[in-house]
Amino acid sequence: MTTPAAINLADKLSQFSDHWNPRIAACYNDNEVRLAKLKGDFDWHSHADTDELFLVIEGALGIEFRDGVQHLERGEMIVVPKGVEHRPFCENEVHVMIMDREGEPNTGINASARTRETLEAI
Amino acid sequence: MTTPAAINLADKLSQFSDHWNPRIAACYNDNEVRLAKLKGDFDWHSHADTDELFLVIEGALGIEFRDGVQHLERGEMIVVPKGVEHRPFCENEVHVMIMDREGEPNTGINASARTRETLEAI
Repeated sequence: MTTPAAINLADKLSQFSDHWNPRIAACYNDNEVRLAKLKGDFDWHSHADTDELFLVIEGALGIEFRDGVQHLERGEMIVVPKGVEHRPFCENEVHVMIMDREGEPNTGINASARTRETLEAI
Repeated sequence: MTTPAAINLADKLSQFSDHWNPRIAACYNDNEVRLAKLKGDFDWHSHADTDELFLVIEGALGIEFRDGVQHLERGEMIVVPKGVEHRPFCENEVHVMIMDREGEPNTGINASARTRETLEAI
């Protein structure tokens, strides 16, 4: 059997409700396609060995950088290059697809109370 | 300046109208985030050294495999593992995000009249 599964992002997102706890929806070339619900302010962090891709599925996401800020709406994405410090934030709940290299903690090199070393697959 | 650009997928897709000619919207960990408009039947092909991710942005996409078929609607994705033969098809125009390793031809190892060796960045 070689036919891969189709993945409905909204269905997967409906399977959990907690914030800042990404789930792994798929793997692609040694990277993880993660789905997360975010609300509030995250911690400043960077990823040493992986770019990080955010695609907004529902809602609005801000990402603060040391020299600017981006505001992403549904259907907008950004790639944060490895090594670049950033801080996601959002007033209301936002649903996002995130890509990171396999096994990368959500807080990168900056461990905090929000660090998730191991993510659940859904 | 380290603040990356925000990328609006619909805006990027509005910049071209031809079918089966993906544009590069972003790079992520040596992979390309491509946007394409598809309509009709593509060729059977496989990719030797890269998985291929499809995410439907607008419309409906079929992908035939040697032992099955998947039908993807807006907000649905699939990862075709490297080496797995597949054939995208769609009756009506569909807008998709596709990820491949950098430089991968759209027809993988199966060159055809539809092969695009070099893709334009938008």
